[in-house]
Amino acid sequence: MVGYGYWGPLLARNFAAIPGSRLVAVCDSSDEQLALARMHYSQLRCVTSIIELLEDSRIDAVAIATPVSSHFELVHACLIAGKHVLVEKPLASSSNQARALVKTAEDYRRVLLIDHTYLYSSAVQAISAALTHGELGEVYYYDSVRINLGRFRSDVDVLWDLASHDLAILDYLFNDAPTSLQAVGFTYPPGEMCPLAYLTLRWGERRIAQIHVSWLAPVKVRRTLIGGSLGMVVFDDLDPDTKLRIYDHGIAGTGPSNRQGDAPLQWRIGYRRGEMRAPLLSIAEPLRNLAEHFIDCISKGAPVRSDGDSGVRVIEWLEAAQRSLAQGGIPVHLDISTKVSE
Amino acid sequence: MVGYGYWGPLLARNFAAIPGSRLVAVCDSSDEQLALARMHYSQLRCVTSIIELLEDSRIDAVAIATPVSSHFELVHACLIAGKHVLVEKPLASSSNQARALVKTAEDYRRVLLIDHTYLYSSAVQAISAALTHGELGEVYYYDSVRINLGRFRSDVDVLWDLASHDLAILDYLFNDAPTSLQAVGFTYPPGEMCPLAYLTLRWGERRIAQIHVSWLAPVKVRRTLIGGSLGMVVFDDLDPDTKLRIYDHGIAGTGPSNRQGDAPLQWRIGYRRGEMRAPLLSIAEPLRNLAEHFIDCISKGAPVRSDGDSGVRVIEWLEAAQRSLAQGGIPVHLDISTKVSE
Amino acid sequence: MVGYGYWGPLLARNFAAIPGSRLVAVCDSSDEQLALARMHYSQLRCVTSIIELLEDSRIDAVAIATPVSSHFELVHACLIAGKHVLVEKPLASSSNQARALVKTAEDYRRVLLIDHTYLYSSAVQAISAALTHGELGEVYYYDSVRINLGRFRSDVDVLWDLASHDLAILDYLFNDAPTSLQAVGFTYPPGEMCPLAYLTLRWGERRIAQIHVSWLAPVKVRRTLIGGSLGMVVFDDLDPDTKLRIYDHGIAGTGPSNRQGDAPLQWRIGYRRGEMRAPLLSIAEPLRNLAEHFIDCISKGAPVRSDGDSGVRVIEWLEAAQRSLAQGGIPVHLDISTKVSE
Amino acid sequence: MVGYGYWGPLLARNFAAIPGSRLVAVCDSSDEQLALARMHYSQLRCVTSIIELLEDSRIDAVAIATPVSSHFELVHACLIAGKHVLVEKPLASSSNQARALVKTAEDYRRVLLIDHTYLYSSAVQAISAALTHGELGEVYYYDSVRINLGRFRSDVDVLWDLASHDLAILDYLFNDAPTSLQAVGFTYPPGEMCPLAYLTLRWGERRIAQIHVSWLAPVKVRRTLIGGSLGMVVFDDLDPDTKLRIYDHGIAGTGPSNRQGDAPLQWRIGYRRGEMRAPLLSIAEPLRNLAEHFIDCISKGAPVRSDGDSGVRVIEWLEAAQRSLAQGGIPVHLDISTKVSE
Repeated sequence: MVGYGYWGPLLARNFAAIPGSRLVAVCDSSDEQLALARMHYSQLRCVTSIIELLEDSRIDAVAIATPVSSHFELVHACLIAGKHVLVEKPLASSSNQARALVKTAEDYRRVLLIDHTYLYSSAVQAISAALTHGELGEVYYYDSVRINLGRFRSDVDVLWDLASHDLAILDYLFNDAPTSLQAVGFTYPPGEMCPLAYLTLRWGERRIAQIHVSWLAPVKVRRTLIGGSLGMVVFDDLDPDTKLRIYDHGIAGTGPSNRQGDAPLQWRIGYRRGEMRAPLLSIAEPLRNLAEHFIDCISKGAPVRSDGDSGVRVIEWLEAAQRSLAQGGIPVHLDISTKVSE
Repeated sequence: MVGYGYWGPLLARNFAAIPGSRLVAVCDSSDEQLALARMHYSQLRCVTSIIELLEDSRIDAVAIATPVSSHFELVHACLIAGKHVLVEKPLASSSNQARALVKTAEDYRRVLLIDHTYLYSSAVQAISAALTHGELGEVYYYDSVRINLGRFRSDVDVLWDLASHDLAILDYLFNDAPTSLQAVGFTYPPGEMCPLAYLTLRWGERRIAQIHVSWLAPVKVRRTLIGGSLGMVVFDDLDPDTKLRIYDHGIAGTGPSNRQGDAPLQWRIGYRRGEMRAPLLSIAEPLRNLAEHFIDCISKGAPVRSDGDSGVRVIEWLEAAQRSLAQGGIPVHLDISTKVSE
Repeated sequence: MVGYGYWGPLLARNFAAIPGSRLVAVCDSSDEQLALARMHYSQLRCVTSIIELLEDSRIDAVAIATPVSSHFELVHACLIAGKHVLVEKPLASSSNQARALVKTAEDYRRVLLIDHTYLYSSAVQAISAALTHGELGEVYYYDSVRINLGRFRSDVDVLWDLASHDLAILDYLFNDAPTSLQAVGFTYPPGEMCPLAYLTLRWGERRIAQIHVSWLAPVKVRRTLIGGSLGMVVFDDLDPDTKLRIYDHGIAGTGPSNRQGDAPLQWRIGYRRGEMRAPLLSIAEPLRNLAEHFIDCISKGAPVRSDGDSGVRVIEWLEAAQRSLAQGGIPVHLDISTKVSE
Repeated sequence: MVGYGYWGPLLARNFAAIPGSRLVAVCDSSDEQLALARMHYSQLRCVTSIIELLEDSRIDAVAIATPVSSHFELVHACLIAGKHVLVEKPLASSSNQARALVKTAEDYRRVLLIDHTYLYSSAVQAISAALTHGELGEVYYYDSVRINLGRFRSDVDVLWDLASHDLAILDYLFNDAPTSLQAVGFTYPPGEMCPLAYLTLRWGERRIAQIHVSWLAPVKVRRTLIGGSLGMVVFDDLDPDTKLRIYDHGIAGTGPSNRQGDAPLQWRIGYRRGEMRAPLLSIAEPLRNLAEHFIDCISKGAPVRSDGDSGVRVIEWLEAAQRSLAQGGIPVHLDISTKVSE
């Protein structure tokens, strides 16, 4: 485990608890954090520099939960030392860095897994299943609200911190890439940090996604709506009883209708209202699922669910969002993202 | 009362109930609707053409609740016949029409009041009071979600139907006009009707407002967040117990801080978390308040809260939104709106 | 229509709107209320004494929405004048009175329908269907919370006002009668009015129902839980989106298990957690359904859903609750209620 | 730490983290649980019998989180070995046992603290402050709903498991003891385990408390209402944003009023509706506060907030509830509980 601040202990706890992995060492620059780790895990090797760990051939894999700015160097060092790597999202500080890391992982034939935690939640898995089974029909929109008061981060803005979750979910749920993107936000002080933003993605005229992220909201909301021609989804991650609801509601054109004599033909839309169901969700912690998946990828060669390519795409979209933001919210066209790995 | 469809009966009921007004006639093109009116009000004059009403000198004022496309002609006819006019929002089909009506009302010295219903709700009144008393400090953002499943309208799109409420509220709450605006949406069928849209308004770098309106959502939401340097507001119009909450939360720069040695100076933002209070709201119906205000404007010359100028500005913003929407969501600059009336 | 206070106008509106009935006369002791009625319905006969209406042979049926203390006399007078009667719940001030009215209705072969409004709601109809289809299995408990702040009534206490709704629902949903009942409450001033009470009903050891009613609660709640061996229900009448949820959750004994060696055999209970579904509910107003049902009973001889016998049982239970309340909450045994009508 | 099952690790974590205490040993009969403890804390002494710990004079205090049936023996052994004791609620299996333990603690001048966790939550502390400041006036009722699906326990029923929380809160908030109590419930299989119960406490005619506890509910609820003459409280422990709300609502008699001429004089009650406020609550974990309080009691002789006497009273009430339950819900009179300690 490299980095033992906020997220590191959570990852450590899961790797310590599952069969197939053993937590042998923790690396952190802070002696205080290492003391904490030592208190929780006996016989743990605690180091302040990653060098020693890289040389230890008994270590197969490294989990990295450090500030984003350090990702590139650390992941790269681990990969070329022959370690499999699990790294906090986002993968790196830029898409160039991210692409380089994907290439390195490929060259060294190592597993590179990005901790896009939501992909390992039972709710997103159930949404994915509903999509696969065609339960929602053609998806028209995705709307996500991810707001709360603080905690303000100084290393990344609110888009990199919170919108990255939704970008990873979008990348996972839909097979086709968005064609354009735009972002607006409030910066405070003007032109500096961005603690509130709205990010819009378009798939031509076929689909729209909007992500509202904020550190300035008096209430905490984590709610995603997905609407399609045959069904709709509400995913409320804070609902203690019912996180996921799938509505048998439909939206559909009712055919061209000639309105008011000479007026041009106009399609009309109508809707169908049906039952709602809340599938039974496993209560397994996403991080537990993630840890187990990482082990499976290493030991059984399972295909990586949140692989380097997805990490690259998420960063490309974040960079496009920054460009749009800097230019007052203009739409930015996205090239159909190509796979870095082959 | 002109127009006795969905909204007309609600207005009629209020004018029939308050002192200072008497409901004497209803005009509607449908005999069926007139029969309904006749059943509810005895000694009511029911007509299918507005002409007869205009000639009746005993009628002082006309309330108009007809489709938007008919507003211009009807309002104009009433004003030049010397009647005071209350008209459903939006005032007209275009800002040109709207400006012409404001001019006519001025020329004929008649009251022209737009039914921006929310301005007459006790919640918006309480928010306005909190702003006036400086309880929120400098307002940084306004975020409104106004979504539900249907009812699809064929005469106006979702922006004209639902976002117009928020535009009227913004116009009322803030003294300064937005400087730019952009809108994105989902049209179905592509390029035709717009049942889902996101509208963003900017006040330079100082403030941002976002309005999410939709007829395609599986759940009904009517929730507005307002965040300022000293306080924040949650207005949830569907909460049966607590529609309005005012949080003593603050957002503020903590001054420049030198991060990581040589790194550039950076302002940091912090927040303060305090108590929340829910002011006691009058349970008076907004439409009742509106009806009483209309009577006051006519009989006592009270200044009109939702006057023609506000109606013009709302339409100018809706038109700017349409231009943005048609060009893929580009930002549109707004001239500082000047008053039509002098 | 006899009585045009709070509830009368709502009933009147529905009878005026449905085919098969015509609202011809309203009776109320207050001239002010009659003026209100006259304003809403043209060609309406308005009287202050019921006598004139009883003599009018063109009137087939009377709806009564007056204070409870007047029910007995009014219903009786209407029945012997040959009118069918719909009367507000509770049917009368005592079970003796209620039984007498049932007998009279039988003797004069008139329809006597109690306005137990909830039985005509789509939610209770859906619960009834779920029970009939065995979806809940054996029902173990019914728990209802019906609380808010005010409105305090001076003619009846909170049990007669609010708990009567649940007693009617229980009577409708379950085929078997409760065997005992107890009630505790808070009276204010001590020994006088009861604005908060808990009523418990038992069906031997097989089932328990608890009803919490209050005019002293800071929040409004209308929520009923029903739990059975195979399924559970949450009926939240204030939820704007999902009033009814049916859970595929089960409770069941797992058989005797010998715990800790020599310890006595002990049954253990376990539970099964499954999906939840929210059936699509008709948005038809309960009062509309009720009005149509009344017409059907009169014109087609349909069996009365909330008949006089159910009205008698509800009052018997309320009287038993009062006896328990007066004696400090002791359990009161209930004779298996026999039908008055034959 | 004695007992390292569900609750033990949580207590251990807090004692390991605060200044003033050091976690030196864990005792559990299960080797598996000890392995878990060893993994989390290095240099931890792990034993399967408490004897060794009692003899270790360097150990000042013992925290006990074992099944209730073992409490008496363990607490007693620790006290006579001169250790201060923190023990899970309830203190013992019977009030006789509990009284004996209080006597022993007194004889040996040791701190005996019951883990009535809620007394250490910031919400209950804020309610207590509101009561002390007279913000609620005279309290008329306390209503608590503490329900969810499972987890079924085999050592104690739902009253001992969940209602004990409310009994401790009631004991803490009010200076006067209840005068009578009754309990009804659903047992499954009949006469065996009780997974659903309603417990009512009375303070003469002055106040009523009702506690609804259940392991059979499809939804999780943790909500307490408190209503007084001047104010009301809603404490919703599951609300992610606003756990505590204090309403400036009042209930009061409006004096005798002569209703309807000759009718007997009748008091009427009225209500006042005012603002609501949500005090800012510290986010400190209750268990952290509890651990710190235990240390303060030992090192500074601070008066024990949840002392042995309170533990005795809670068990006396649970025993009275069992007697009522066994006799079909009859009211049981409570002697004004006297302090065991002097």
